[in-house]
Amino acid sequence: MSVTAPAGFAAAGRACGIKADGVFDLALVAADPPRPVAGAGVFTTNGAAAAPVRVSRAHLGATGGRVAAVVLNSGCANAATGAPGIAAAELTAAQTAAHLGVPPESVLVCSTGLIGDPLPLAPLLGGLPALVAGRGSAREDARACARAILTTDTHEKEVVIEAGGALIGGMAKGAGMIAPNMATMLCVLTTDADVAPAVLHEALAVAVGETFNQLTVDGCTSTNDSVIALASGRGPALTPEVLTEGLREACSALALELAKDAEGTTRVARITVVGARSVDDARRAARRVAESSLVKTSLFGADPYWGRIVSELGASGAAFDLDRVSVAYGGVVACAGGVAAAHDRAAAAAALAGDVVEITCDLGLGSAAATIVTCDLGHGYIDENMKTS
Amino acid sequence: MSVTAPAGFAAAGRACGIKADGVFDLALVAADPPRPVAGAGVFTTNGAAAAPVRVSRAHLGATGGRVAAVVLNSGCANAATGAPGIAAAELTAAQTAAHLGVPPESVLVCSTGLIGDPLPLAPLLGGLPALVAGRGSAREDARACARAILTTDTHEKEVVIEAGGALIGGMAKGAGMIAPNMATMLCVLTTDADVAPAVLHEALAVAVGETFNQLTVDGCTSTNDSVIALASGRGPALTPEVLTEGLREACSALALELAKDAEGTTRVARITVVGARSVDDARRAARRVAESSLVKTSLFGADPYWGRIVSELGASGAAFDLDRVSVAYGGVVACAGGVAAAHDRAAAAAALAGDVVEITCDLGLGSAAATIVTCDLGHGYIDENMKTS
Repeated sequence: MSVTAPAGFAAAGRACGIKADGVFDLALVAADPPRPVAGAGVFTTNGAAAAPVRVSRAHLGATGGRVAAVVLNSGCANAATGAPGIAAAELTAAQTAAHLGVPPESVLVCSTGLIGDPLPLAPLLGGLPALVAGRGSAREDARACARAILTTDTHEKEVVIEAGGALIGGMAKGAGMIAPNMATMLCVLTTDADVAPAVLHEALAVAVGETFNQLTVDGCTSTNDSVIALASGRGPALTPEVLTEGLREACSALALELAKDAEGTTRVARITVVGARSVDDARRAARRVAESSLVKTSLFGADPYWGRIVSELGASGAAFDLDRVSVAYGGVVACAGGVAAAHDRAAAAAALAGDVVEITCDLGLGSAAATIVTCDLGHGYIDENMKTS
Repeated sequence: MSVTAPAGFAAAGRACGIKADGVFDLALVAADPPRPVAGAGVFTTNGAAAAPVRVSRAHLGATGGRVAAVVLNSGCANAATGAPGIAAAELTAAQTAAHLGVPPESVLVCSTGLIGDPLPLAPLLGGLPALVAGRGSAREDARACARAILTTDTHEKEVVIEAGGALIGGMAKGAGMIAPNMATMLCVLTTDADVAPAVLHEALAVAVGETFNQLTVDGCTSTNDSVIALASGRGPALTPEVLTEGLREACSALALELAKDAEGTTRVARITVVGARSVDDARRAARRVAESSLVKTSLFGADPYWGRIVSELGASGAAFDLDRVSVAYGGVVACAGGVAAAHDRAAAAAALAGDVVEITCDLGLGSAAATIVTCDLGHGYIDENMKTS
């Protein structure tokens, strides 16, 4: 069900011809019946933010967080497309709004695909009437919507959770270029909770900061990252705490799905740094390990070479004393006190052979901790990314 | 000739049994006749610095920059080895000093290889007498020395240049784990110039900062990076400017060799950012592009996908205005004013197909510039790094 599970939403997904061979490429999530409801968005920090990001930010600012619909396309990022790109994103929002009978600024826009190509407006605008007319609240409507935003993802990513009597549904796409401060990822969350736009925005920002922003696939921050939340108000009111926790749970589940389905990935790892002097230090150290090409290549080879991990911790800039460092694979301590520790090699190898590898690094200096989710770097990543055409 | 080209130096390289099958693994560069001469070193900034780095730093501090010899081994990094590792490095220096008849603290130590393994002291110390006794100043002595420090490098890296009537010789090893603030790289430079230790140190620091530290293979800063310079004083006195320029030229030549011979590399790229608001911005932007897995994978595929470059520039944190950005491959402008520019695709493809690719990014905001040398990311890197044993 995902985005149509909470009361008050309809969704649709279809092929409009941006992609070849009838592959789904156009998606809609709309309040049902169509009207502006509480909405919030968190977007890429990339200075080269794409046109749809710029337009969506402006619309949210103009309406004060009142959103009737999100229209999304895959197959083109509409990034590095100049003023024509902005006009194309605005036109997409305006025509979607006209078909729904809502104000143009209550529609947000998301795009994903290659950077630098002009948005194919003719097929996109031509596809809007059928997209809007065909929307619905059934499981298959949400699934079609989730399918239409995929690029190199291999399957739809959907979630539904319950929080304080309200439902939160979500869909996301990921694949490559996933890193700090949002990823080449789009995510739309819906809830029937009754919540003010400002509260929704704050809760979303916290949830994204602790989930998607703690995920790194290749350290690349995309031009198009967007996480958007809509609240229909058809269900119970939630405290900010319950809302935040619910959004965090939904985002966390989707983030793990993104990591597992990252381009060419065979293995996901959770890098946890404990014993850091500060949370900033813990995050810096964990991210350095998680983004290391050498550590990621070791993960691909299921090779417990903890020396690379110690080296990255030492290079991270976090407060560091080699003599206090330990490294464990799935609880098997391979390095203690900064030197090799006698350990069960078969157990370490088994910990590395799983789908989700747990690596814990103890800096031995304090009590702060952080976890970053990453994935391995293998031949699949090279094959998927070496040629775009 | 490399390190034995300048008057006043002898060198040796041989197999002592750290590596299997008689592969060279022990090297010596010594003042000839043996006595302390002016010496300087620049070392890794990694907080997990290896034992030989710690010992060499301490020796340079204790002597005020008087160095008689450098003893180097490959096959083991002697990193993350605790107090026994420090003792092993001290013992290596002391026994080398005894064989040469010089003070123990006038000997520096370098190691390269896997992190976390104890240094095989028995073969190393057992090999020292023959190493010291067999030293010489012939071309083959320098070549054997340069060979004995290699790990996954495919060939020796040597250089000789002339500066102000003096000679500067150098040897280096590189391969993986090469990045800012030194690399998994060792480099020994010799000169017959007559120069004080403090002047030599300052010149070396500047030269390294502008050459090796502007090279990145995979963003990983190793535990063992060391660049050491010795000056015999047998030749002319040099001004600091001439000495610095000479060391820069020697280091630059060796840095390019390191990039070309990096693990699994098929292609080297020089990423130049111009039009930045400050040199810091230019370096930050160039480094972000140079370390991007997506950009490096595109280089492997010889794919002129400039969108990834624009995205990394935007994510770099440098002052940035997308509308002013241009990107050129070997002078072929593929992006101008932040959007696709009509260009000769065959010429762009040709620029990407060469051994050394020139990529120029103009931020259009100022006059500062910087260049970072990097290499592609392809299947060879994965194969070389996925398993260490």
